[in-house]
Amino acid sequence: MTNLINELSNSQEFIGRHNGPNSNDQQAMLDIINSLSDTKANSLDDLIAQTVPANIRLKEPMTLEAPMSEADMLTKIKGIAQLNKVQRTFIGQGYYNTFTPNVILRNVLENPGWYTAYTPYQPEISQGRLESLLNYQQMVMDLTGMDIANASLLDEATAAGEAMTLCKRAGKSKSNVFFVANDVHPQTIEVVKTRAEFIGFEVLIGDIDTLSQQDVFGALLQYPSTTGEVRDLTDVIAASQANKTLVTVATDLLACALLKPAGEMGADVVIGSAQRFGVPMGYGGPHAAFMATRENHKRTMPGRVIGVSIDSKGNQALRMAMQTREQHIRREKATSNICTAQALLANMASFYAVYHGAEGLRTIARRTHHFTAVLAAGLKHSGYELAHQTFFDTITIDSQEQTERLYQAAQHAGINLRKSPTQLGISLDETTTTQDIEALFAIFGVEWEVSHFSSDIAANEFSAIPESCRRSSSFLTHPVFNTHHSETQMMRYLKKLENKDFSLTHGMIPLGSCTMKLNAAAEMIPVTWPEFGSIHPFAPIEQAASYTALADSLRKQLCEITGYDEFSLQPNSGASGEYAGLIAIQRYHQSRGEGHRNVCLIPSSAHGTNPATASMVSMKVVVVKCDEQGNVDLNDLGAKIEKHQDNISSIMITYPSTHGVFEENVREVCQMVHAVGGQVYLDGANMNAQVGLTNPGVIGGDVSHLNLHKTFCIPHGGGGPGMGPIGVKSHLAPFLPGHIENGVVGKEYAVAAADLGSASILPISWAYIAMMGGQGLTEATKLAILNANYIMERLRPHYPVLYRGDHGRVAHECIIDIRPLKEQTGISEEDIAKRLMDYGFHAPTMSFPVAGTLMVEPTESEDKAELDRFCDAMIAIRAEMDNVEKGEWPLDNNPLVNAPHTQVDLMSEAWDHPYTREVACFPSAQTKDSKYWPTVNRVDNVYGDRNLICSCPSIDSYE
Amino acid sequence: MTNLINELSNSQEFIGRHNGPNSNDQQAMLDIINSLSDTKANSLDDLIAQTVPANIRLKEPMTLEAPMSEADMLTKIKGIAQLNKVQRTFIGQGYYNTFTPNVILRNVLENPGWYTAYTPYQPEISQGRLESLLNYQQMVMDLTGMDIANASLLDEATAAGEAMTLCKRAGKSKSNVFFVANDVHPQTIEVVKTRAEFIGFEVLIGDIDTLSQQDVFGALLQYPSTTGEVRDLTDVIAASQANKTLVTVATDLLACALLKPAGEMGADVVIGSAQRFGVPMGYGGPHAAFMATRENHKRTMPGRVIGVSIDSKGNQALRMAMQTREQHIRREKATSNICTAQALLANMASFYAVYHGAEGLRTIARRTHHFTAVLAAGLKHSGYELAHQTFFDTITIDSQEQTERLYQAAQHAGINLRKSPTQLGISLDETTTTQDIEALFAIFGVEWEVSHFSSDIAANEFSAIPESCRRSSSFLTHPVFNTHHSETQMMRYLKKLENKDFSLTHGMIPLGSCTMKLNAAAEMIPVTWPEFGSIHPFAPIEQAASYTALADSLRKQLCEITGYDEFSLQPNSGASGEYAGLIAIQRYHQSRGEGHRNVCLIPSSAHGTNPATASMVSMKVVVVKCDEQGNVDLNDLGAKIEKHQDNISSIMITYPSTHGVFEENVREVCQMVHAVGGQVYLDGANMNAQVGLTNPGVIGGDVSHLNLHKTFCIPHGGGGPGMGPIGVKSHLAPFLPGHIENGVVGKEYAVAAADLGSASILPISWAYIAMMGGQGLTEATKLAILNANYIMERLRPHYPVLYRGDHGRVAHECIIDIRPLKEQTGISEEDIAKRLMDYGFHAPTMSFPVAGTLMVEPTESEDKAELDRFCDAMIAIRAEMDNVEKGEWPLDNNPLVNAPHTQVDLMSEAWDHPYTREVACFPSAQTKDSKYWPTVNRVDNVYGDRNLICSCPSIDSYE
Repeated sequence: MTNLINELSNSQEFIGRHNGPNSNDQQAMLDIINSLSDTKANSLDDLIAQTVPANIRLKEPMTLEAPMSEADMLTKIKGIAQLNKVQRTFIGQGYYNTFTPNVILRNVLENPGWYTAYTPYQPEISQGRLESLLNYQQMVMDLTGMDIANASLLDEATAAGEAMTLCKRAGKSKSNVFFVANDVHPQTIEVVKTRAEFIGFEVLIGDIDTLSQQDVFGALLQYPSTTGEVRDLTDVIAASQANKTLVTVATDLLACALLKPAGEMGADVVIGSAQRFGVPMGYGGPHAAFMATRENHKRTMPGRVIGVSIDSKGNQALRMAMQTREQHIRREKATSNICTAQALLANMASFYAVYHGAEGLRTIARRTHHFTAVLAAGLKHSGYELAHQTFFDTITIDSQEQTERLYQAAQHAGINLRKSPTQLGISLDETTTTQDIEALFAIFGVEWEVSHFSSDIAANEFSAIPESCRRSSSFLTHPVFNTHHSETQMMRYLKKLENKDFSLTHGMIPLGSCTMKLNAAAEMIPVTWPEFGSIHPFAPIEQAASYTALADSLRKQLCEITGYDEFSLQPNSGASGEYAGLIAIQRYHQSRGEGHRNVCLIPSSAHGTNPATASMVSMKVVVVKCDEQGNVDLNDLGAKIEKHQDNISSIMITYPSTHGVFEENVREVCQMVHAVGGQVYLDGANMNAQVGLTNPGVIGGDVSHLNLHKTFCIPHGGGGPGMGPIGVKSHLAPFLPGHIENGVVGKEYAVAAADLGSASILPISWAYIAMMGGQGLTEATKLAILNANYIMERLRPHYPVLYRGDHGRVAHECIIDIRPLKEQTGISEEDIAKRLMDYGFHAPTMSFPVAGTLMVEPTESEDKAELDRFCDAMIAIRAEMDNVEKGEWPLDNNPLVNAPHTQVDLMSEAWDHPYTREVACFPSAQTKDSKYWPTVNRVDNVYGDRNLICSCPSIDSYE
Repeated sequence: MTNLINELSNSQEFIGRHNGPNSNDQQAMLDIINSLSDTKANSLDDLIAQTVPANIRLKEPMTLEAPMSEADMLTKIKGIAQLNKVQRTFIGQGYYNTFTPNVILRNVLENPGWYTAYTPYQPEISQGRLESLLNYQQMVMDLTGMDIANASLLDEATAAGEAMTLCKRAGKSKSNVFFVANDVHPQTIEVVKTRAEFIGFEVLIGDIDTLSQQDVFGALLQYPSTTGEVRDLTDVIAASQANKTLVTVATDLLACALLKPAGEMGADVVIGSAQRFGVPMGYGGPHAAFMATRENHKRTMPGRVIGVSIDSKGNQALRMAMQTREQHIRREKATSNICTAQALLANMASFYAVYHGAEGLRTIARRTHHFTAVLAAGLKHSGYELAHQTFFDTITIDSQEQTERLYQAAQHAGINLRKSPTQLGISLDETTTTQDIEALFAIFGVEWEVSHFSSDIAANEFSAIPESCRRSSSFLTHPVFNTHHSETQMMRYLKKLENKDFSLTHGMIPLGSCTMKLNAAAEMIPVTWPEFGSIHPFAPIEQAASYTALADSLRKQLCEITGYDEFSLQPNSGASGEYAGLIAIQRYHQSRGEGHRNVCLIPSSAHGTNPATASMVSMKVVVVKCDEQGNVDLNDLGAKIEKHQDNISSIMITYPSTHGVFEENVREVCQMVHAVGGQVYLDGANMNAQVGLTNPGVIGGDVSHLNLHKTFCIPHGGGGPGMGPIGVKSHLAPFLPGHIENGVVGKEYAVAAADLGSASILPISWAYIAMMGGQGLTEATKLAILNANYIMERLRPHYPVLYRGDHGRVAHECIIDIRPLKEQTGISEEDIAKRLMDYGFHAPTMSFPVAGTLMVEPTESEDKAELDRFCDAMIAIRAEMDNVEKGEWPLDNNPLVNAPHTQVDLMSEAWDHPYTREVACFPSAQTKDSKYWPTVNRVDNVYGDRNLICSCPSIDSYE
């Protein structure tokens, strides 16, 4: 095309929408940096050259497709989406059709007020989603009949893995064996087997009736079973517990509305998926899994737990409570590395329960069950044998030699059934209609009418549920589940909670290492298209052609961006990615007869999940020191390598380091480890500072996970979903995770229930890359670095900056050191963080990677105006600290220690502070124009300030 | 199906979602009503029987299709939507493809925070959309080069009609003739002709060069012309103005980015459509039209104008200012009845300009123009003759005998062109690509490359625009158009404004006569499907098959609901519906040789638009008295009929009356008018109290408009869109409006630019009716009446209730009389309305239909909890009034006269009020849990409190 057509084209418009600073901003920021810094940068490229070491810079630009406009991208992905073939699906096996209430779809899943929020580490500005997550816990406890529940896990299969290690931690058995009933969902068994192998447990798979004779530390049962059977587990649980076996039951929340819950049968742990509570199947994820347990095990439960606490005024306030994952990571030998949850999906499921209430859920369960009973009656009437006479929503037909014919007849009718060599499974759900049953009758040659069977069954509606398995206890009796049943009230409840929470719709969330960038509307739009939502993860692969195409395209994009040769999209969180990566390394060593390599070198600056993950694969963590600049201490590294030489499995490093600096010697680090046969795990948390400038392949990594929810625009969802795909060099490719069902040799290790992990959010990252192209992505990286350096230089006259590179530059984030200021003024980093709320900001990352510091990461999406608003606030806060130091304000009564301030503070007639109401609540011009209000005062965090780190604690605790 | 299957089905679930009170609520409310009322109701049906006169009750239930679940409805309408065939469209003629920025799509058009707000009559809780509408005015003023603009009109054609009457009102010419250039869009000419005929003007259509020789009071030109020509109008405008002709120019906002605007050429009025600024074509609407004029005509401009004012503290505050429509309605002979605007669409267009800024718009305009220039060059190079050598985005080819062949070739290629017998028109837009030009070249046999022509043109990019027509002035220089260009900043701006405004997401909006019920998410979802959005209103009818099917289905539904025989969906507001209805009546009389009938009887309780509309069709308004109960005074009616007997055209009545009562004698009223050959116009504003219980057909109406944005769930959009389709008995059916293009005899009268009016929002009402079915709709009516009676009975011990029916019941709304209380306490209805904001409510309708009253309409969508919250607030306010009366609080310093209170009030150190901050801002428990904040103090409304009526003032002003 001609120059003019190119100049006028909108194909690059999105780049300027995603990246905050325009060219005027950029020049103004460079000018200010130059006025403050000793090193001068004549241009953005100059600044980058001073920041990123030359020896790791890419020689050539990335070769990605040219950037697309939003409209062109949406047209293209619509075409891809339509490759999927949405059939009626009765496969079940843990995934069910569901109606997402439209009021929830529109006001939660499609609303940036909900999906752009961060994990609620700052409870004063997160009471909305904390309330909703508390509802989630209550819902799980009620339905399962247990004492306590967490606020979601990644999927049912990983929840089972977590339950296994919980049983080991909490139980008293000396056994090293975990029993898994042979009627558990197959994908769960695969994930449990993988987990067990690398942590060193033996898995015994057997018939449930053999359990009580085994000496096992724990057991996993499924209720109803994967084939649909409903049986009373009371006796088998009791007998096992008598043998010191802790019993986990995987269950189904909808079934719990009709069935006596596993908790009432004595289970120690109950897990499962909340998918069918309004979350589309989406080819396997993301959905929220749950875990519930007994009061006496609560301190060992993995995952996030929301608790009711009080604030500094004694008012009720919610927070993430005891049992946050970090407590396990701190253990000498961690057995869980779980960080992110599925907050957005847990919220959807919890709102589904709020909207339907107990009565609504019971009606849905009864409808589902009644259609199943009709179907069973029809089939039996026509001579089919059922594998079980009891069921909730799933029947299994002993179809024997008719199996293939019937399966194909169903396919011909556009219907997916579950198939084994001699059986066919049919699972119904809330979307099932009379027409569906008629269609199934037609396939199976049942000639009678639905109404005939229905009338018969109506007289004894629950006859397919054993009497001892029928639920008699009430559930969801809390007022919240009995109030918001009209759409009007539900909409207002959703908006009320939304408006309590700080999200990217209010202002910058400058979290170091968490990269809270724009989640563009265009990227989110395909996520809720039914073409993506309605696909069952175990549907015939040809029906999921769009997922295959999209995943292939995304893998190709990510390989180009990272310099890796192959990608697995299965890990559904960053921690899961690390885990899959270390397994790949260990399997590689094993394949070369070097299975003894078990030492994992981890610099002291590393993310806390790193050592936790190493523990989960039975590695020995050896910490490598960092020098004063935060760089890996090469001498110490050399010494540690020498000491453990033959046993070095790998090193886990983050680049740029968690200290926010591009280390000059990173290639040397990699080479030293490679020289002794070790592998380099390069944590992708800081990939946002690399894209287009350097990459893990060039640096020397063998494997990395990428946090798609950081660098690649998947929103944080208020605490999940995340996505942690891993890239590898070709020698590790055979050891990527996969499911056996895919039939690829070597793919027998699985880290998530579904092969593509959280497939339905892949379009977000794909769309981002497609609209930015290589040029836009590279510009984003440069601007992320520019923005961080701008903030650093503006703050440096007021706050000590802890680490800078050789030319005085920082990478995409910077750490300011509050320790000397605290000594001087008595004001802590937490006071600053809470005071920022009064100014309308989310706090930066606190005390990670160094206690007593704040780490600021603005990302490329913030423009100069917002950066200035933040810097102005920080500088004003610094002046407030001076006032305290000078004694103008007492140390125990000043706007910093009293922060955050609320409407209730402002309302009170008594005002016994030496500063005004205006200073308290409206300290800046912007807050007068548009005030975001914290809804509670400072929350009493008796369980440890140090948990308030991006997601995971410092490695220091391992020393 | 069996009873059990029916019982468990979800097909009626939506009814319980839409209707607020569940069966427990209903019983509790009846109990309370019975404890307070002299008349006892044993059941809801009993209450209804006491409320709705037996002689108008339906004998049989309505026969609508059975209610559908949300999912089934969406499946069905998706099927209908897919009947539309979306082709590439280059028809132009006032409608263009456009890219709706996704950040605006998601956060405005798909967000109830924006679409459920009411018209901003209460400025203290409407500053968000007032700011956005002010931006709209600024955008129009800047782009057109005019002094003042209004905040949107219904469409370009009706804007032309409004401009015509403005020219008559504002000008000094004695002429009765209005000139319309023959190169104005044809649909505009049709609407102007209709308007002129009934108001008594002559329309002269001619060549623009003949204008200056004519004695006409006004003229309408199009720039660029409908065929695309760009010519300098400076001289012709000056010459006409010398003849006392006021000149209106219809223009195109995108063209204004490159062309010297009509304002700079001297136009008196500039009108047009803002559709192409990000609002989908949607088969013709809704979109925002605009009107701009000179400073000296501002007092006569129709439509809403937002103005900058101050609040009681002297701070800046926006409000609807001078020139609101009511001023014209009050005129002895109104020449405009315009009420609703297109606020939601005006906001979208204004945000589009905010997001793109001047530079972005100029780039879009240049791209559009450049492709047009390339197309023109290619066609000329291949020997085609163009009708004009100058153009912006539209060329017209003198294709002569090749016309049909080329048109069909384009159709074959999936491309829509504009066709006249000897010409083909092609209009390009921001979505045009090189591929489009190549496709057009292929159709027209142009063999050279696009790049060839592009390179040639680049050297003289604007050669197709006469030098004197090129824009040199700057535009959109205001900071708001130069700040929010990243998506992050735009999203925050949208959310900031949203959060300033009270909408249904916050609480009840109990506006009498305005029916602010639930706008369900499921109803809104199809509106933004591309199948509905991308259809040009003049596309070949077979491409719009879904609109045809949907309109047919909706007409059928509405006929069943109203008892009418035929419906026209063309009127795009309630006022437009009234207008179309009176035209139908007058044409009917004319067809029977009774064209002299010109008296329109209007009861004094009628809505203000009624007489205004009568004036617009040159009728003489005769006011009929009401008795003390608010019923039509039959004696006075008889007397007026006798006096005007032979000249009676019609009566316009509202039922239930605007007094909120079902008059017992309504059938008698109708019979009396029919007896003398008159027709009955039954205003549909209160249709929400009729559906399923009675209907206009049974009552005796001949024609009615329905406000689909009241009874049938189209959201108010913060001040529009509306929809006012009219139903008629069969004898009036031949006189319904239509466009000539449709080729139906008698359809030569048009009241809107597009045949189906605001077609793209029809799915909302269709979906509502489909999901409710006859049963749900009838239940909704009953509950609307129950809710109103519940509020009435709860308030009656505290406030006088002005009108009740024979059994002491009210209809769906009730009027409480503040006049005696004001006398007693000094507190006015306005004080109460503003104080309600402090309690978290939107005020009821003030001073309509009776000055000094409040009219409350809760609708069926509010549940008992919300009704109680409102009643509790009203009762608490009543106690506050007592405090003033008792002298506890001075009359000039109490929470009522100081209401509403803001955050700034709360912040101030000085608190010189005899009540606490808590009483001021947090007077109820609910406000402490979730406070909605008015953002300014009471706005200074020097232009008259009486304007603060639902939409239109009382008929009293006509006396």
